[in-house]
Amino acid sequence: MNRIQNGWFSEINDQWPGQALSLEVDEILFEGKSKYQDILVFKSKHHGKVLVLDGVIQCTDRDEFSYQEMITFLPLNSHPCPKKVLIVGGGDGGVIREVSKHPAVESIVQCEIDGEVIEVCKKYLPNMAKGFSSPKLTQYIGDGFDYMKKHENEFDVIITDSSDPVGPAESLFQESYYKLMKKALKPDGVLCCQGECIWLHIPLITSVLEFCRGLFPVVSYGYTTIPTYPSGQIGFILCSNNKDTRFDQPVTEFTENQLEELQLKYYDAEVHKTAFILPRFAKKALSP
Amino acid sequence: MNRIQNGWFSEINDQWPGQALSLEVDEILFEGKSKYQDILVFKSKHHGKVLVLDGVIQCTDRDEFSYQEMITFLPLNSHPCPKKVLIVGGGDGGVIREVSKHPAVESIVQCEIDGEVIEVCKKYLPNMAKGFSSPKLTQYIGDGFDYMKKHENEFDVIITDSSDPVGPAESLFQESYYKLMKKALKPDGVLCCQGECIWLHIPLITSVLEFCRGLFPVVSYGYTTIPTYPSGQIGFILCSNNKDTRFDQPVTEFTENQLEELQLKYYDAEVHKTAFILPRFAKKALSP
Repeated sequence: MNRIQNGWFSEINDQWPGQALSLEVDEILFEGKSKYQDILVFKSKHHGKVLVLDGVIQCTDRDEFSYQEMITFLPLNSHPCPKKVLIVGGGDGGVIREVSKHPAVESIVQCEIDGEVIEVCKKYLPNMAKGFSSPKLTQYIGDGFDYMKKHENEFDVIITDSSDPVGPAESLFQESYYKLMKKALKPDGVLCCQGECIWLHIPLITSVLEFCRGLFPVVSYGYTTIPTYPSGQIGFILCSNNKDTRFDQPVTEFTENQLEELQLKYYDAEVHKTAFILPRFAKKALSP
Repeated sequence: MNRIQNGWFSEINDQWPGQALSLEVDEILFEGKSKYQDILVFKSKHHGKVLVLDGVIQCTDRDEFSYQEMITFLPLNSHPCPKKVLIVGGGDGGVIREVSKHPAVESIVQCEIDGEVIEVCKKYLPNMAKGFSSPKLTQYIGDGFDYMKKHENEFDVIITDSSDPVGPAESLFQESYYKLMKKALKPDGVLCCQGECIWLHIPLITSVLEFCRGLFPVVSYGYTTIPTYPSGQIGFILCSNNKDTRFDQPVTEFTENQLEELQLKYYDAEVHKTAFILPRFAKKALSP
């Protein structure tokens, strides 16, 4: 199969051999190549607009809320007062959109290596890119490693909204990156990183959890369902510098009124608590 | 896209417009047409053997355990003593395999309309079809409606392991079918039916739940993750004749030893309880 053929985009990739999700294309909106990756945006027939980097679907209008809400509120509501948040990656703006909703958040720094992704998303994906207009936001276009080396003991929460560990995001799945995040966090800080899928990447997830357990007193793996990611789910690696953090027991539980105000479509306190209950095969594989 | 092209099978269907999962084909093992439907079995490159009916993936060796375990143990462990079980559909044998594991089950009746599916699965899908050798099993090749009309007040649990509501399984999503199940169940009986996906079929699920609430004192909707079903999840409609049933509180909780003995890879008591916690958009849509 080719990537775009007969009006369908197919997500063929060695990271999930022998399986591919295809989406029907209505119109290609942008195709280009940044310094770091291939960028494609198309309007699909039934899933709204779609952002693709290096041939991999990053988000669709139809289901992006699941990922953006969960990678945001799992860590934010596990911290008693998440005032200062760092987002590494997140070039589409969707995570900023969610983080800026949280009543405790006072300032957000985004550190995205690929400024062209941001520009393309501002132009073609306004529903996510509206995050960029948050008055709480400061942007830094550059490498997350460089940024964190100069910012120790500064953040309550760090969210890494990265693509897969092939290409520009490869280093974000390595121990050296988690060591930097540990230092950039305050002593009671928490982090949440895109953590790949239990149906596809148990060896990778196991190795990340293993070095995390050597660095942080509290480490968890949760997940959310999202149809347009490979195998229909995506996970999150959560770590805390605070030994009393229990990621499956949010310290902040939004009321029904708050959930409505914040326009949350996937996340609530019950969904938060159960995100850490894994199918037995995964629970066994990922246990310490 | 065509169904099989360049060595890939693609699941294109009007039930999930604009999206299609493709699996890489190693070898086609069987292709034929029964009285009721097209039957295809292929060996895939990375997902084991795959059964396809009328162009829709029914099960793959790689992830079928999720569906079979959950459609079985959600209802069985919600009933205090599930001695007699009726399975409608389930032509691959996988649900029988799981039901026959349950220590309380004494007898299983399977009512499958398409005997050719059973024969094909016996030949090509031994991992699922081993259910057919259960000494607890009685088979009836024919229509579930006809069978139940002659068997009132007889079963502790009825499981409907059907394909989608297009083709031979269409009637299994209608109120008349649920009325028959209600009568075929004992006064404290429970049922569990394949219930489609919250990411694709909210209107259908809503209408089924609505008539169920008119028939049964307890009605719930749970789900499981399964990569090779459309959008990566599938749900279950659960109803009980017993007003004290709480589907999210299993009356039987398997111990770790039992889970090992029964070779369960997806299901445990925690997974059971959290199967009913839905994303906020689905919870709102499906509430009474």
